[in-house]
Amino acid sequence: MILDVDTGVDDALALLLAVKSTALDLRGVTCVAGNTGLEAVVRNTLRVLDAAGAPLDLPVAAGAARPLLDPPHLAEPDATQTAEHVHGADGLAGVDLPDSARPLDRRPAVELLRDLLLGAEAPITLVPLAPMTNIALLLRTYPEVRPKIERIVLMGGAVNGGNVTAAAEFNVFADPEAAAIVFGAGVPVTMYGLDVFYSVRVSAAEATAMAASDVPSARLAGQLLLFRMTGEADSAEIGDAGAVAAVITPDGLTTEALPVRVELDGRYTRGATLVDRRAESDKDWDPHRAYPAPVVDVALGVDAKRYAAIFVDTVSCP
Amino acid sequence: MILDVDTGVDDALALLLAVKSTALDLRGVTCVAGNTGLEAVVRNTLRVLDAAGAPLDLPVAAGAARPLLDPPHLAEPDATQTAEHVHGADGLAGVDLPDSARPLDRRPAVELLRDLLLGAEAPITLVPLAPMTNIALLLRTYPEVRPKIERIVLMGGAVNGGNVTAAAEFNVFADPEAAAIVFGAGVPVTMYGLDVFYSVRVSAAEATAMAASDVPSARLAGQLLLFRMTGEADSAEIGDAGAVAAVITPDGLTTEALPVRVELDGRYTRGATLVDRRAESDKDWDPHRAYPAPVVDVALGVDAKRYAAIFVDTVSCP
Amino acid sequence: MILDVDTGVDDALALLLAVKSTALDLRGVTCVAGNTGLEAVVRNTLRVLDAAGAPLDLPVAAGAARPLLDPPHLAEPDATQTAEHVHGADGLAGVDLPDSARPLDRRPAVELLRDLLLGAEAPITLVPLAPMTNIALLLRTYPEVRPKIERIVLMGGAVNGGNVTAAAEFNVFADPEAAAIVFGAGVPVTMYGLDVFYSVRVSAAEATAMAASDVPSARLAGQLLLFRMTGEADSAEIGDAGAVAAVITPDGLTTEALPVRVELDGRYTRGATLVDRRAESDKDWDPHRAYPAPVVDVALGVDAKRYAAIFVDTVSCP
Amino acid sequence: MILDVDTGVDDALALLLAVKSTALDLRGVTCVAGNTGLEAVVRNTLRVLDAAGAPLDLPVAAGAARPLLDPPHLAEPDATQTAEHVHGADGLAGVDLPDSARPLDRRPAVELLRDLLLGAEAPITLVPLAPMTNIALLLRTYPEVRPKIERIVLMGGAVNGGNVTAAAEFNVFADPEAAAIVFGAGVPVTMYGLDVFYSVRVSAAEATAMAASDVPSARLAGQLLLFRMTGEADSAEIGDAGAVAAVITPDGLTTEALPVRVELDGRYTRGATLVDRRAESDKDWDPHRAYPAPVVDVALGVDAKRYAAIFVDTVSCP
Ligand SMILES: [Ca+2]
Ligand SMILES: [Ca+2]
Ligand SMILES: [Ca+2]
Ligand SMILES: [Ca+2]
Repeated sequence: MILDVDTGVDDALALLLAVKSTALDLRGVTCVAGNTGLEAVVRNTLRVLDAAGAPLDLPVAAGAARPLLDPPHLAEPDATQTAEHVHGADGLAGVDLPDSARPLDRRPAVELLRDLLLGAEAPITLVPLAPMTNIALLLRTYPEVRPKIERIVLMGGAVNGGNVTAAAEFNVFADPEAAAIVFGAGVPVTMYGLDVFYSVRVSAAEATAMAASDVPSARLAGQLLLFRMTGEADSAEIGDAGAVAAVITPDGLTTEALPVRVELDGRYTRGATLVDRRAESDKDWDPHRAYPAPVVDVALGVDAKRYAAIFVDTVSCP
Repeated sequence: MILDVDTGVDDALALLLAVKSTALDLRGVTCVAGNTGLEAVVRNTLRVLDAAGAPLDLPVAAGAARPLLDPPHLAEPDATQTAEHVHGADGLAGVDLPDSARPLDRRPAVELLRDLLLGAEAPITLVPLAPMTNIALLLRTYPEVRPKIERIVLMGGAVNGGNVTAAAEFNVFADPEAAAIVFGAGVPVTMYGLDVFYSVRVSAAEATAMAASDVPSARLAGQLLLFRMTGEADSAEIGDAGAVAAVITPDGLTTEALPVRVELDGRYTRGATLVDRRAESDKDWDPHRAYPAPVVDVALGVDAKRYAAIFVDTVSCP
Repeated sequence: MILDVDTGVDDALALLLAVKSTALDLRGVTCVAGNTGLEAVVRNTLRVLDAAGAPLDLPVAAGAARPLLDPPHLAEPDATQTAEHVHGADGLAGVDLPDSARPLDRRPAVELLRDLLLGAEAPITLVPLAPMTNIALLLRTYPEVRPKIERIVLMGGAVNGGNVTAAAEFNVFADPEAAAIVFGAGVPVTMYGLDVFYSVRVSAAEATAMAASDVPSARLAGQLLLFRMTGEADSAEIGDAGAVAAVITPDGLTTEALPVRVELDGRYTRGATLVDRRAESDKDWDPHRAYPAPVVDVALGVDAKRYAAIFVDTVSCP
Repeated sequence: MILDVDTGVDDALALLLAVKSTALDLRGVTCVAGNTGLEAVVRNTLRVLDAAGAPLDLPVAAGAARPLLDPPHLAEPDATQTAEHVHGADGLAGVDLPDSARPLDRRPAVELLRDLLLGAEAPITLVPLAPMTNIALLLRTYPEVRPKIERIVLMGGAVNGGNVTAAAEFNVFADPEAAAIVFGAGVPVTMYGLDVFYSVRVSAAEATAMAASDVPSARLAGQLLLFRMTGEADSAEIGDAGAVAAVITPDGLTTEALPVRVELDGRYTRGATLVDRRAESDKDWDPHRAYPAPVVDVALGVDAKRYAAIFVDTVSCP
């Protein structure tokens, strides 16, 4: 597995799970701007990998510092496209982690991805948990990697309504063209979207226990989850980490193979993942019928208790 | 109540219910192209009104023969925008109704609507069951009618996916600009969309009984419903008639006041009714937040048994 | 001829020319929001007609107070779409005209247009000099008027770049859907756009002489033209009045019959009039070739001296 | 200079000029799909370089075989986006050139571009003569190359109307997102578009003389130009080669620094290069004013005789 992250609280949880899981073979981590700027993403990622106890030779590479296109001009010209309001000013909930001495791979993300894929004996699963700029650049610059991608399990999109806008989820909205490239790449894709994203939750009691743990990965996970429990919330979602759980235990996810298009043009729907849930027989009069959409395994349900348990158990293990 | 129809099987059922219901005061019927061409819509409407036993002085007017704009060029240039595949070649399920001697009002639909509204002592409910071209032309040509519209209860739109396209429902897709005008008119709007449209159903047994009735309205309703039960279906939806039931018994409908935008521009989402179900607190970072969408009472659930019973009982009553 | 105006300095000049020209048979004037709000447009129009000495029975009707659709949300939510910066706060250059006792027709613009057209013995030329909302509503509500429209000579659009945006001219930008309806109505259309709009000019000397005239129409025209000569300008365009001159003397206009589309969707090009100047043989590979655009007589050149002389002479005539 | 080509007749002429010109230091050639498929582009490019007598160590790399996004669905699903109708089935006018033994660089185009730029002592001029996919991937994957790009002199775009569509020129239309990335990259850009593209012409007499030359580059150029003179044409444009001439002799080009946007969304204007020729004072009311467009040096005129002479002389030189 290779993770592509914009760490970020969510991605931190996902990194902790991925590193600690003995069921996974984490080959590399690539960074991209998203929740926060690229520099902070890299810094956060390296620190979280320290907390997770990742091997020092796990390659980590920096990638795109911006989306493929400039964001459309919807609001103020200086509107940020990052999500610092959700992740704290440093993108990591203000948790004070020590500086990392961990080296950054000298290759850009796209080259690291290419090298890991082309060098692998068997196809590898990619897990993008961020705007998909790196993956799109990879697919267009090195299309020969495609047979070496076993599957792309991505956090992004939504069947029933977005979060940044009424229509669009953040990771897709932040780089819709990149998402369109990834969805249409001809590689098996699992869309772990908002329809399941918020379902896998850790209780305040569990998070408090983790935060008090001696195990660094548990402690950090607990702190990050507690940061999320603002106001009266008594639980928090593991977010991106759910997509990692879906690689560990695919049968905890209920998916359906459905046509999905990324809307690039809409005045209000740019960045929406339009999932077509109609019966085949109802499509005869669709003016788009001559142009079939990519078929994606869309997560419609999740065994939330199981994924939460996988997360807590794995991350808490010394 | 005034009905705006593109008769059509659905609209026929709605007309039967509206005429026979003693709870309603049907003031007029206006016709618009949609399920089939305007000429057939008018012919079908007059014949159905005969079968319903509508008073001869119920004014019926012809309106728009086409949508505001030419349809975008998505598929073949000769792609029809009508829905004859759903309603039979004559738009009325091939049911052979006698010619009507019922007169057509000499006024165009827009003027009949204006006259009925401005002449009414109290505000009137409009029930558009078709592409909303007539209503849009009314609102833009005679904005002074707005205070005389009690509410617009429209069949159209969808929260969770369309029928003509993955995103768009037929009535909105057929004239998205008109729908945008109606949704944004500043008049109370109830959106009776696909999320409830298919829920209110009559069984094959009931439909068969109705089709064998001596009551003409019941007989016609039964025939139309049986036409719908193709293949192995053992029930059929009353469709547009549900919106009329929602005027008769509003508390059978579960609605929520939600922001709704009609997407006019999307490559794949043109004609979608984008319903914003997010919590207020989640909208802070929406680039569209400076431009509030019209708030509409969106039907999210329906007491299907009750509406079906209202339909069957009312239409079957001699 | 019937004028549709958003008076406005330009439209005032056009009204003066149209009323004073013995070559024209001015049958009516309809008003629409545009340069300024509808109320001010009506007030300005009545006053200018007084100055022009128009007969009191010349019917003047108020029409649309807003465009078909809400403007897209490109800038501030409160961004005005009127052009008061160009025409002064009252839309009429601050020229202090006496109140008019002239009656306003009780019919809305759309009905006056219909009545004048259907009641005419021979087809009539429509001259829209403003956002085309009234004309679009007319064409969609009363399509039967089309054979009674001899031609639509409209001020609007541009071949080579707009004024409100880099792509779009004000009258089309202010209601692009209305313009699309008008261009595609199947009626002969002459587009008198920005490519000629600024060419027909009156010198400062002439304007000064007119402003000093005893003839009220000349005096007003002179004042309005001088208002335009800000800074170091020593001449001013007659603007909309050029379209009236084009009805008086069509052969002063060099036109070419060209396909024209109104772009409704572009991020930067909404409201552009896309004029296709390619040779037929170059269109074989155009993906839009299956959907021919309306063919419009596009003004590419003008005998500016002649039109200016027509204006000055006609308006100055006692 | 580095050329990015989709050879193609035009690009062949440009390659001949670039290789033969002693005023230029050609460092490399990158290939991209466009006029024809990538494989044919590479084959054509290598053969043309043989004819030009290019040194065998001139690096030539293959790049993108497709644009960033799938083409929008405007016409038939199988509509080709290449321009084989213009360039013959092999993209090279059917001229039968011998196979080339010239090696292809093992690096993909994006890496060759990066290496050449980062390895150069002084900034280098890039000359894209094709869909700009390679350059866009370079700029997004290796933004650090930007200071090493002296200028991008690109053949593409148009001020006054396109060729593939009424709005869009082929190279931009074939990958509008890539073009938007290039125009907005913050690097000096010269747009050598359709407004000058067809102006630089070689007469039939000259082309015939060249075709009869002993000099291989002259012979091939003559053959290609004669291929263009179909029907009654007695001259042919040198096309892309004009952009190379503009690098050799920049002062033969009349340019203006103007804001340019690439329209990505329009129904009819996708791929248009919207050049803003308005005076600054006219932009105050532009709703887009808060979002300044990239400023590009747009070619508005060309010393056609001079560029044609440069071409003929340089290519004919033994
Ligand atoms: Ca993330
Ligand atoms: Ca209907
Ligand atoms: Ca005007
Ligand atoms: Ca080329």
